[in-house]
Amino acid sequence: MDFTYDEVTERLRERLLAFMDECVYPAEEEFEAQAAESGWRPPPVLEKLKAEARRRGLWNLFLPGEYGAGLTNLQYAPLAEIMGRSPRIAPAATNCAAPDTGNMEVLAMFGTPEQRRAWLEPLLRGEIRSAFAMTEPDVASSDATNIATRIERDGDEYVINGRKWFISGAMNPDCRIFIVMGKTDPDAPKHRQQSMVLVPRDTPGLTVRRSMHVFGYTDADHGGHAELIFENVRVPASNLIGEEGGGFAIAQARLGPGRIHHCMRLIGMAERALELMCRRAWSRTAFGAPLAHQGVIQDWIAEARVTIEQLRLLVLKTAWLMDTVGNKGAHTEIQAIKVAVPKAVQEIVDRAIQVHGGGGVSQDFPLAALWAAARTLRLADGPDEVHKRSLAWRELKRYQG
Amino acid sequence: MDFTYDEVTERLRERLLAFMDECVYPAEEEFEAQAAESGWRPPPVLEKLKAEARRRGLWNLFLPGEYGAGLTNLQYAPLAEIMGRSPRIAPAATNCAAPDTGNMEVLAMFGTPEQRRAWLEPLLRGEIRSAFAMTEPDVASSDATNIATRIERDGDEYVINGRKWFISGAMNPDCRIFIVMGKTDPDAPKHRQQSMVLVPRDTPGLTVRRSMHVFGYTDADHGGHAELIFENVRVPASNLIGEEGGGFAIAQARLGPGRIHHCMRLIGMAERALELMCRRAWSRTAFGAPLAHQGVIQDWIAEARVTIEQLRLLVLKTAWLMDTVGNKGAHTEIQAIKVAVPKAVQEIVDRAIQVHGGGGVSQDFPLAALWAAARTLRLADGPDEVHKRSLAWRELKRYQG
Amino acid sequence: MDFTYDEVTERLRERLLAFMDECVYPAEEEFEAQAAESGWRPPPVLEKLKAEARRRGLWNLFLPGEYGAGLTNLQYAPLAEIMGRSPRIAPAATNCAAPDTGNMEVLAMFGTPEQRRAWLEPLLRGEIRSAFAMTEPDVASSDATNIATRIERDGDEYVINGRKWFISGAMNPDCRIFIVMGKTDPDAPKHRQQSMVLVPRDTPGLTVRRSMHVFGYTDADHGGHAELIFENVRVPASNLIGEEGGGFAIAQARLGPGRIHHCMRLIGMAERALELMCRRAWSRTAFGAPLAHQGVIQDWIAEARVTIEQLRLLVLKTAWLMDTVGNKGAHTEIQAIKVAVPKAVQEIVDRAIQVHGGGGVSQDFPLAALWAAARTLRLADGPDEVHKRSLAWRELKRYQG
Amino acid sequence: MDFTYDEVTERLRERLLAFMDECVYPAEEEFEAQAAESGWRPPPVLEKLKAEARRRGLWNLFLPGEYGAGLTNLQYAPLAEIMGRSPRIAPAATNCAAPDTGNMEVLAMFGTPEQRRAWLEPLLRGEIRSAFAMTEPDVASSDATNIATRIERDGDEYVINGRKWFISGAMNPDCRIFIVMGKTDPDAPKHRQQSMVLVPRDTPGLTVRRSMHVFGYTDADHGGHAELIFENVRVPASNLIGEEGGGFAIAQARLGPGRIHHCMRLIGMAERALELMCRRAWSRTAFGAPLAHQGVIQDWIAEARVTIEQLRLLVLKTAWLMDTVGNKGAHTEIQAIKVAVPKAVQEIVDRAIQVHGGGGVSQDFPLAALWAAARTLRLADGPDEVHKRSLAWRELKRYQG
Repeated sequence: MDFTYDEVTERLRERLLAFMDECVYPAEEEFEAQAAESGWRPPPVLEKLKAEARRRGLWNLFLPGEYGAGLTNLQYAPLAEIMGRSPRIAPAATNCAAPDTGNMEVLAMFGTPEQRRAWLEPLLRGEIRSAFAMTEPDVASSDATNIATRIERDGDEYVINGRKWFISGAMNPDCRIFIVMGKTDPDAPKHRQQSMVLVPRDTPGLTVRRSMHVFGYTDADHGGHAELIFENVRVPASNLIGEEGGGFAIAQARLGPGRIHHCMRLIGMAERALELMCRRAWSRTAFGAPLAHQGVIQDWIAEARVTIEQLRLLVLKTAWLMDTVGNKGAHTEIQAIKVAVPKAVQEIVDRAIQVHGGGGVSQDFPLAALWAAARTLRLADGPDEVHKRSLAWRELKRYQG
Repeated sequence: MDFTYDEVTERLRERLLAFMDECVYPAEEEFEAQAAESGWRPPPVLEKLKAEARRRGLWNLFLPGEYGAGLTNLQYAPLAEIMGRSPRIAPAATNCAAPDTGNMEVLAMFGTPEQRRAWLEPLLRGEIRSAFAMTEPDVASSDATNIATRIERDGDEYVINGRKWFISGAMNPDCRIFIVMGKTDPDAPKHRQQSMVLVPRDTPGLTVRRSMHVFGYTDADHGGHAELIFENVRVPASNLIGEEGGGFAIAQARLGPGRIHHCMRLIGMAERALELMCRRAWSRTAFGAPLAHQGVIQDWIAEARVTIEQLRLLVLKTAWLMDTVGNKGAHTEIQAIKVAVPKAVQEIVDRAIQVHGGGGVSQDFPLAALWAAARTLRLADGPDEVHKRSLAWRELKRYQG
Repeated sequence: MDFTYDEVTERLRERLLAFMDECVYPAEEEFEAQAAESGWRPPPVLEKLKAEARRRGLWNLFLPGEYGAGLTNLQYAPLAEIMGRSPRIAPAATNCAAPDTGNMEVLAMFGTPEQRRAWLEPLLRGEIRSAFAMTEPDVASSDATNIATRIERDGDEYVINGRKWFISGAMNPDCRIFIVMGKTDPDAPKHRQQSMVLVPRDTPGLTVRRSMHVFGYTDADHGGHAELIFENVRVPASNLIGEEGGGFAIAQARLGPGRIHHCMRLIGMAERALELMCRRAWSRTAFGAPLAHQGVIQDWIAEARVTIEQLRLLVLKTAWLMDTVGNKGAHTEIQAIKVAVPKAVQEIVDRAIQVHGGGGVSQDFPLAALWAAARTLRLADGPDEVHKRSLAWRELKRYQG
Repeated sequence: MDFTYDEVTERLRERLLAFMDECVYPAEEEFEAQAAESGWRPPPVLEKLKAEARRRGLWNLFLPGEYGAGLTNLQYAPLAEIMGRSPRIAPAATNCAAPDTGNMEVLAMFGTPEQRRAWLEPLLRGEIRSAFAMTEPDVASSDATNIATRIERDGDEYVINGRKWFISGAMNPDCRIFIVMGKTDPDAPKHRQQSMVLVPRDTPGLTVRRSMHVFGYTDADHGGHAELIFENVRVPASNLIGEEGGGFAIAQARLGPGRIHHCMRLIGMAERALELMCRRAWSRTAFGAPLAHQGVIQDWIAEARVTIEQLRLLVLKTAWLMDTVGNKGAHTEIQAIKVAVPKAVQEIVDRAIQVHGGGGVSQDFPLAALWAAARTLRLADGPDEVHKRSLAWRELKRYQG
């Protein structure tokens, strides 16, 4: 057992930390100002940051294998954490932002050469964005087998009908390609009914209906969260990803890394919130002394630190398990971090807000938006309760008579 | 001891409940749709509702004494709770919305006949709106003695300089009058330094600088939360409310009822959230049965009910104390509800959100906005921690050697 | 609505408070010292206190109707709270201790003249103690219909076979009479299968097998908590209480007041813990100042006060409901206090322990024993979860399609 | 970074797990039965288990260096966890029980050859027991500099006067030697005032005054927790451990490993509680199905598993830090586990109790005693709040202007 990061990780951490200090944090104010005016596209300053990140070799770090930086989950995790400290800028600047990361992984693993040429390559170059259209409004999104959207074969084409919502990034006009999950064969066994197809943004019949808000936020700089209507949307049969009936398996493959990336970024968000809480505690005076002297605030700071240390270790161990025994072998741990991290981080951010007074809930600090992000992750791809139930069941089975 | 509402209260509750069922709930959808387009003014449907409420004798219920409905706090509390079930519409429709309520109380109690004619009367008729400009960005808002804004006498005028933020309602162009708190004499004893003056919206030197967001919300239908800049703003000396040095006392007088109204509305919000949680539990199916059969959700529902019952009783007792021994005698209880209610209601709403999945955080249900409102009240007029500290000190003093 | 105690209550409160100050608190040290040596009987000092309480007219306050003080639940509740401040002495000293209270109620309501003469009268005079034998080790005690003990009619006798545990008071040799619940007719409808019979302590076939501990405590001063074995125990048919098949109804009648008494005493225990916490905060110094200056401890004190106020009101309202609409009409509220009070009081006591350091968990302060009592009440007559489930179901039914 | 145990650890784990399965668990019932009769000495069955453990090479595993098994903290931690699953037997059976472990470490590191011969050797052989007399009733035990006991040089002797309490193990007549901490020079710098001396049990002037209880438990099988009075107790000057004024440093050296051992055992206790909770969930039926089907219980099981995984990783990392950068470098982490582990484990055990109903609080399951042990560790060597305060201060200092 050994708790040191390996050399590759350390070198990249150093480089990334320098990029954060020299480029990302200093750009935050400008980013916010531009964001208020840039509609559904990211603020222009992002393109400059992307160029700089690429120049520094901080690009596609998330992607294992030949197409990306080739890191393991354990190597990438500490980098994702650092990016999470400025979650609206750093992941996007390094081309490591969800949902593109998962989509690139899918295309790298399951795409045909033609699909990779058409969509993976521009995504890897950061020229376009993409969306992943799975969640539906009328069914519990925690179970991919519930999906109602139909994908029907009609000659050389697939015809898609259905409704999706909370499709992150899809309000951005530069989001050119959607990976759409739907049912090709409702009569097949439960996990063989689904398939995924590539649907370019401007395909007729596809309507971007509206933006879903998240605690009042539109997340416009990130392309928002769209509701999409598919009405007889037709794509060539060659737009199928992998094989018919393989959608569930692809979704599962995509999910593990997706969750761990989210969790690592959340830990970075918690570190940021803790830092802000400490700084505020020094800068604000009440009852004749800096807030830093208040016992209750000290208590919050200590609990935040103790919690963060535990969460980080659990995420790192999960990454290590994914690398060594595979996503399936790490199933319990992946569920564990999904359940543990957003909830704990939400609480840390909440206390940081409390220390900031009215400013904490406003646009003047990043805290309220961080909170909304963490809170929403307690629901994204299945509410905590569903994961806890499944995790408990596995534990209980060990003792079943 | 007796836990029945008196006859006056029962009659008004019935009338108000009918108004909610017949007018308010049915108008919610239209209200939201119009709100998206009505800028900083309330949606037009509100005027229709105001007329109807007035016709039904549901008008200015909050105001004791000759100018209003003449109810006690104990009589008004259960009505405010009912209004809280549709908090963006019902209080405004009945001319019982903060901050106008507190402002009308101030004018009724401390205003000159001329001030009452100019501002109280149109407010009572619901023709204009008002704001209360106390909170400042650079000092802890929990302590009115910290206020930095200056109000200086210059001949027949007062000259105001300072910066205020989170001034609710002030983005609305129909918000015609601001009650501004500032220091007239920084050398007076601590609680005699402050005064309040009336500043009409269009007074030169007063800039409405920007809208403060609350977890992404602008609360535009309610006139938002403004940052105001006062630069050599001049008003006639007759705009002083009460006497010079009386500002702190007026603020205190305003605060008790303000807090109890907030708390009663919060209880209505919690009831609404609980109702939504139950309805969702029946309408949504997972694992082959309605969510209503899930033990964890049942647990949340039970805890919500048990919590609400306790909160309501504490608020009612506080109202009764204010009526019988005065705001000062009810000081501990007022602090207790300020600390207990927003936090508990926030938690209830959070669980209702969780039961709603992704929809819960979006604009499709009122829950996320209710949550933001409850959360923010843990900070408004002083963070919980300040009130707990003061309350604890009073408890400790009983046993000091 | 009115939150003042009536005159009868106020007069008795005064008298009881004087008794606490003059007799009970001063006797606590002696009581503990004697308890270490008095085996399963209460310490001898108790008899002196009983005589004094009786002399002062503080006797059988719990009992409504002709046989007792004739108070309503609402009148008795604040008195039970005061007794709870010294829970091992005051209830016993005033002949208001469980389980005798419930047993006396049962005999007063359902006993034959002969049963009342033989058992109620000496109980009312405080000459003997009694036990209530319902809970069984092998079934969920939350549901009286689960009971496995058999009571079979055989000529002029009933024959009892079964096993009971956690029968409070039964280790005390002066506990002369047991009310035993069992099944007389397993084929009758679910709530008509049970009956109650009186079993004198020395009846052949009845074995007091062992003492059940509660977090290491034997509660010997209170007669402990016994496991009882009934092997062909025979009692005359005239020992039946009420009618055959009426056991469940009697148990229900007994339960409501029992729970509310427990809850009121718990509130007194919480007040005691809070007082001890405050006193300790003044007497103990750390980091150069009394603990009273520590923010975290202030926070605990404030939360304790705010919580206690809410709990008390809910219990009082429940008592009022029982008086006005009956135990059945107060069903939700009785469940609510059963769920809310022990848990919250346990937490308050836990924090008081923490402020006392090592002493807090020891026999030098009453806190650890108070904690164990509160904790155990989260399980007694059904774990919280069962009550929450039932309460939630009633709430959910209001919205069932 | 690597999360596998090394080979030495794995081999010992296997051996220890076999010992648990084959010897420890099967002996638990007998141990409890004997404990009820064996007074302050451990039940006789323990000697048999000690012989067996020694035969199997499971002896003094805790002790680094030449005198013990020579394991690192990281190697020992997973073994201590396993022992914690039967915390009253396994540590004692393997001669790895506190406080002897810490005392042996002190003697191994700081003892003279003569001291080691006289006391370390019989301790290592498991022939005698020892106690560590530091905590005092009248001062905050969280700060060793508060100690009031005096150790004064008088010719060739030291004379000891003072009062100690909660001295674990000291009620056992086989506890032959006490390491006593006291002040030799109250005028020296704060951390140089204390010294430690060896005091044999039968030294005149040393009175074992009484047993301190812990939530009703005497912990007699473990030698209880004694109050000790030192009245002019005289020992030869050669009984000094290390140098005069070195007591504080020795205490610090003893503390780190002590805490981590406690925490690892607590994790084993949590695993045991979780196992019991799961087994009970299968064996107990309510509402027509095993409790395992109850959503709330599943929720508890999932949270227990997720919590345990996090705690274990934090403790292991702390052990690794102690091995690699020393106890001082691991200061924050040692405080973190001290704060995090007992509290979380207490909660897990509490829920396991709840699932067991009345039995859970009784002597029929180990849970209530486990709970009391975990709860008490939130106070032992300083309440959580003191450690959080110190930890927070270190965090805050990073941002001090």
